[in-house]
Amino acid sequence: MANQEDKFKKVISHAKEYGYVFQSSEIYDGLSAVYDYAQNGTELKNNIKQYWWKAMVQLHDNIVGIDSAIFMHPTVWKASGHVDAFNDPLIDNKDSKKRYRADVLIEDYCAKIENKIEKEVTKATKRFGDAFNKQEFITTNPRVVGYQEKIDTILSRMGSSLEKEDLEDVRNLIDELDIVCPVSGSKNWTDVKQFNLMFGTKLGASADSAMDLYLRPETAQGIFVNFLNVQKTGRMKIPFGIAQIGKAFRNEIVARQFIFRQREFEQMEMQFFVRPGTQKEWYESWKENRIKWHLSLGLGEDNYRFHDHDKLAHYADAAADIEFKFPFGFKELEGIHSRTDFDLSSHEKHSGKKLQYFDHEINESYVPYVVETSIGVDRMFLAVFSNSLVEEELENGSTRTVLKLPAVLAPTKAAILPLVKKDGLPEIAKEIVEDLKWDHKVIYDEKDAVGRRYRRQDANGTPFCITVDHQTIEDKTVTIRHRDTMEQKRVAITDLKSIIDAEVSMKEWLKRI
Amino acid sequence: MANQEDKFKKVISHAKEYGYVFQSSEIYDGLSAVYDYAQNGTELKNNIKQYWWKAMVQLHDNIVGIDSAIFMHPTVWKASGHVDAFNDPLIDNKDSKKRYRADVLIEDYCAKIENKIEKEVTKATKRFGDAFNKQEFITTNPRVVGYQEKIDTILSRMGSSLEKEDLEDVRNLIDELDIVCPVSGSKNWTDVKQFNLMFGTKLGASADSAMDLYLRPETAQGIFVNFLNVQKTGRMKIPFGIAQIGKAFRNEIVARQFIFRQREFEQMEMQFFVRPGTQKEWYESWKENRIKWHLSLGLGEDNYRFHDHDKLAHYADAAADIEFKFPFGFKELEGIHSRTDFDLSSHEKHSGKKLQYFDHEINESYVPYVVETSIGVDRMFLAVFSNSLVEEELENGSTRTVLKLPAVLAPTKAAILPLVKKDGLPEIAKEIVEDLKWDHKVIYDEKDAVGRRYRRQDANGTPFCITVDHQTIEDKTVTIRHRDTMEQKRVAITDLKSIIDAEVSMKEWLKRI
Repeated sequence: MANQEDKFKKVISHAKEYGYVFQSSEIYDGLSAVYDYAQNGTELKNNIKQYWWKAMVQLHDNIVGIDSAIFMHPTVWKASGHVDAFNDPLIDNKDSKKRYRADVLIEDYCAKIENKIEKEVTKATKRFGDAFNKQEFITTNPRVVGYQEKIDTILSRMGSSLEKEDLEDVRNLIDELDIVCPVSGSKNWTDVKQFNLMFGTKLGASADSAMDLYLRPETAQGIFVNFLNVQKTGRMKIPFGIAQIGKAFRNEIVARQFIFRQREFEQMEMQFFVRPGTQKEWYESWKENRIKWHLSLGLGEDNYRFHDHDKLAHYADAAADIEFKFPFGFKELEGIHSRTDFDLSSHEKHSGKKLQYFDHEINESYVPYVVETSIGVDRMFLAVFSNSLVEEELENGSTRTVLKLPAVLAPTKAAILPLVKKDGLPEIAKEIVEDLKWDHKVIYDEKDAVGRRYRRQDANGTPFCITVDHQTIEDKTVTIRHRDTMEQKRVAITDLKSIIDAEVSMKEWLKRI
Repeated sequence: MANQEDKFKKVISHAKEYGYVFQSSEIYDGLSAVYDYAQNGTELKNNIKQYWWKAMVQLHDNIVGIDSAIFMHPTVWKASGHVDAFNDPLIDNKDSKKRYRADVLIEDYCAKIENKIEKEVTKATKRFGDAFNKQEFITTNPRVVGYQEKIDTILSRMGSSLEKEDLEDVRNLIDELDIVCPVSGSKNWTDVKQFNLMFGTKLGASADSAMDLYLRPETAQGIFVNFLNVQKTGRMKIPFGIAQIGKAFRNEIVARQFIFRQREFEQMEMQFFVRPGTQKEWYESWKENRIKWHLSLGLGEDNYRFHDHDKLAHYADAAADIEFKFPFGFKELEGIHSRTDFDLSSHEKHSGKKLQYFDHEINESYVPYVVETSIGVDRMFLAVFSNSLVEEELENGSTRTVLKLPAVLAPTKAAILPLVKKDGLPEIAKEIVEDLKWDHKVIYDEKDAVGRRYRRQDANGTPFCITVDHQTIEDKTVTIRHRDTMEQKRVAITDLKSIIDAEVSMKEWLKRI
């Protein structure tokens, strides 16, 4: 646990120090749960988006992409169910006047019991040494088993009460557990109330004619309302998909874990429209397709797992998450949902417009069923970034910090370094930059000893360092150093482009899917 | 005038029919002044953004890109001047309860006089036939000269009153011109009042702790507040630039002209930080650089002009627009502004943090001066799209509609067409698709006669049609047809990739800048 926290702190500080992610409005002491992507982070994020877009849109002749606005007609959110049901259960402490998510208060309570389990494990580890079997211990030690049962009972009661919208019982649970306000220390709680997570704003100037708008809480509805226009103007035949990358907004009361849960975030979603009755096949097929996409990046098979949902949202007939091993444990990275015809049918009802497809093969009109794949850009960024950050012990006993980003996603593909700042070496290095920059993002660096520049590029995630030395003047060769192996090879300047291409080109990586 | 309007209507309907731009939430009867980019429009827009990003960030070793959040700390907008001065002058009609922009009411009044001039011109054209000299007529005909003088007097008085914030005089002008409400027909007006154009929302759940946020009205401030973090972590030396592409929002009362003026829009901005005193040189240099970027796309030199500002905004010491000839006349496409140290100094004052740069060359610390280039993505889209849409008369007397998009920006690079749907031709065509799709966005189309498919791709903006016929089976050649010339050549399948590459690759186009 402590290790995980340390690791996560390192991720966050490395992200700032190397220009990946900054706290928003930092000079104004920050805006909570909002982040800015810095110069390297922006390139990494753009590369992630492009890798997804190419895999989904360019390589599938039956998937097209759209880019719908963040503002939509307010009735859209009535039809989607967000106006009525996109809520968090909140509770106020009357003494501190602080507001909390009731479910998070209860989860925090459980986390404290979890800590007790951790302590028992640590004690036992010390006592038994090498002979300690953790798995056996936590399933047999009576105290630990008791703790775990308590956690399970609490979470299961909370889950079922929330599902039944029995907010009184959630309040009772808080009472029974003697949960106090972390600020006032009192148990002087209000009732639990539902609070809508959508950000509202007003369109138009005059008070009486202003229209209440929402910032979209998901990008999917932009696809559904455009479904028929895209199908017709794009002459699409079912099965086909519509993909979209864009911002969404949720007024989370408790937003935490860095860029994992932000109030402003970005989604990459694809809605696949299919003939009713075939959705289960397509659901399975997209699960497989999406996990292959993830695995193609080489972050390690063990870092992914599927979590099939037992309890389904009102619109779904099947749903699974692809979970990733973040620094704080396995968490949802992507969702694959069989959404039935819920959304299109609901938009038919609310708009009074037919949203049907005429299927020539079976001579029938129907509202298509939808299978969705939905991944958070920021979560994908955090998965790639946190997984890539490693500290390595070197043979000479020193350590190096390396950001082992998949080369296809790395912000800078190569750094061109003159060994010394004289003898014409900088000029040759700059010529190489001028030559390579048309195809790749490359940089020139002449500051500090070359070993230090290597370390800087390692920490920056740059896959290649190309060094110009005195031999270069004689035979037009340079050394090329690989970030991960630290191996250096002597190669001709004229071969550089093809060597880099082979390892960073999106085409080659996409072929691995 | 009538011709311009017709042309503009064609642009809008073509944009819908061929999957470029849809009205937002159309099934709910639309959301005014908000648009969605459809399947082809999204690719065109993404290509425009990439063409800009590569030109600005990848090719300049002293420019980096960031991606800051739409939400920022509210004090940012106090410091930038938007809270106090980002207003439109509004007026209400007491009978209809409708609200208007006072300046637009006056401009509409002038447009009516302009129409009278048009009518005089039309009459005179008919009367004098070929002998008619329009330029001479409008500068000498007493009636027309009178109209023009009236327009000039009104607009100049309005401009100076608005600048002096003399809203009473704007109201008086409306009275004097006898302007009536288009809805109620009455002159029963309220006073003119300033109305802030920023969209507001609330962060957090409880009423007493909620924070008033704005949706950013421009992306530039995201660059300024991150200036020091980027400079330090990126080890940037002045002069250097920070680029950004992102959404911005303005609660325009009267938004019109399709995607030209939307309530939600996208900007591509670059702020270039320079040593004080050198800003004029850099301002000139960026004017030149940016017009070269535009001209590289080959939309025609005559369609651009510079408009140097005489009256400058409070933060600027020089400013110019690059104007483009839209279907409704020359209008601003991009702005180049010498912003002095206004923004950084103001953020220093409001945040209490130093935003200075230590210049090793002159051993001095200073707040850098800034030269900005700011272009609207949607305006650039409209410039490219409207300019590319042409109706051509063919030799046989028929006409064809062609969307002559610069090949580098076209959504689909090639359509692969089997001449007939049998004899194994579809299979060969699909193999070609499979082969090309890794490098380019290509599509397969077998529906309708091949001539009709050519027309469809012409209207779609696809630069190449590749047709598989019976000769292909024998010698593995296909015909490749160029959209603009309609010329067809027979080429080997194995040469297709390099032929397409040469004409669409971003690298080749960027080299023309």
